[in-house]
Amino acid sequence: MTGFSITITPRFYETDALGHINNASITAWFEVARVSYLESLGDKDPSAAKDWILASLQLDFLAETLYGADVIADIIDARVGNSSLTVICAMSQEGRVTVRGTAVLVHMDHESKSSKRIPDELRQRISSHRP
Amino acid sequence: MTGFSITITPRFYETDALGHINNASITAWFEVARVSYLESLGDKDPSAAKDWILASLQLDFLAETLYGADVIADIIDARVGNSSLTVICAMSQEGRVTVRGTAVLVHMDHESKSSKRIPDELRQRISSHRP
Amino acid sequence: MTGFSITITPRFYETDALGHINNASITAWFEVARVSYLESLGDKDPSAAKDWILASLQLDFLAETLYGADVIADIIDARVGNSSLTVICAMSQEGRVTVRGTAVLVHMDHESKSSKRIPDELRQRISSHRP
Amino acid sequence: MTGFSITITPRFYETDALGHINNASITAWFEVARVSYLESLGDKDPSAAKDWILASLQLDFLAETLYGADVIADIIDARVGNSSLTVICAMSQEGRVTVRGTAVLVHMDHESKSSKRIPDELRQRISSHRP
Repeated sequence: MTGFSITITPRFYETDALGHINNASITAWFEVARVSYLESLGDKDPSAAKDWILASLQLDFLAETLYGADVIADIIDARVGNSSLTVICAMSQEGRVTVRGTAVLVHMDHESKSSKRIPDELRQRISSHRP
Repeated sequence: MTGFSITITPRFYETDALGHINNASITAWFEVARVSYLESLGDKDPSAAKDWILASLQLDFLAETLYGADVIADIIDARVGNSSLTVICAMSQEGRVTVRGTAVLVHMDHESKSSKRIPDELRQRISSHRP
Repeated sequence: MTGFSITITPRFYETDALGHINNASITAWFEVARVSYLESLGDKDPSAAKDWILASLQLDFLAETLYGADVIADIIDARVGNSSLTVICAMSQEGRVTVRGTAVLVHMDHESKSSKRIPDELRQRISSHRP
Repeated sequence: MTGFSITITPRFYETDALGHINNASITAWFEVARVSYLESLGDKDPSAAKDWILASLQLDFLAETLYGADVIADIIDARVGNSSLTVICAMSQEGRVTVRGTAVLVHMDHESKSSKRIPDELRQRISSHRP
């Protein structure tokens, strides 16, 4: 547990003709959760998101997500590698987990456009979020 | 008539729970049509879109747009002011006009971040598109 | 003034390569504000949005909307016609109005698929929101 | 190889402030490719998409996808289970693979809202697409 969580109110346009929230909207919410989490580590610096690129994304759709009830997106784990960070998120609606997502992010150096080691200070902040 | 037109294939995620294409997706299509039109004037330079900012947008939804049939977006008029360009678009599906849109764009100077007169060469290209 | 307002936290994916919030995202936010307002009239019935179709949309982009600061969307006026409702919204960021939007909605009868007079009870609720 | 491929022209609003195509837009494109593929199996029936629900999604971002050049989305494999279908897609831009995606879909019976065996006729069509 990282103890980090946000609430997302589903938007009507995020539904599709099947009557539920479309998977592309859920992918977008996962980015909202991830970026909020990263900003929470980086002193709310809005540019924090720009230090990371997304290497991969895995989403399991366990149940339909519907319009009309809030979604809680919990960052349930964050694992630090050398230059990578794996962020695991569970989204739940009315007490039921509907989506589980895993994202692998790579910490980037903007000038060299290559990956760079996650600084120790940031590692500590990620760890201190954990129990 | 500018003689400029593009075809848009509606995407499933662009529908909403009412079963038709959501208005935000249609607004997005209008940008696709506008940007394609601007790029057609600017020798297909992908940065052409960046020379313009959108000042206003008017959309009339004349009929539902549905998933399952292509949409033709015609730029039916383009009116040049000093630094502004008004672009009028009609979208039709199976021969019926479903949306009519008007956008007012302002030609920008990136360095001064202020509007600048539309250059004569570009004015001529806009005019030469017209009948 | 209707006294109705919501807060929208801009999402990173709602930016575009110009570095600001894209107009299609702002159109989507306007739907969020409208639907929330309609739901506030209709006892939070999530289906309230389905009783209305959007006839037209006007958006004036008065200043850039940026990532990194909350947006307040105020429904500043709502005018009832026979079967239509005109909703006017101002969006502001850090105290500055960046977008002004007007939407004309038509109240629909789902069975006949035609417009129907806005019921008196709903008219009163719309009026009672006003000062 | 299924031999199925579509071309996607990146849209300006699909970029984000990092200057490239946002991951949520790429997820949306994957749906476009999948749905087109499913429709190609189902005699272009626009409702074909509704027979399937998405169980999981895996996306690997191998390189940035940029605005300004077409993307080819190839369905490179489709594996049939009892009621599931695994669809693998590679997206490339200017000859370079930028994204690889795997989606697991489940064939649904709308009335019982449960999964149902993929019919033999559809299995054959999926297989006949393969070399």
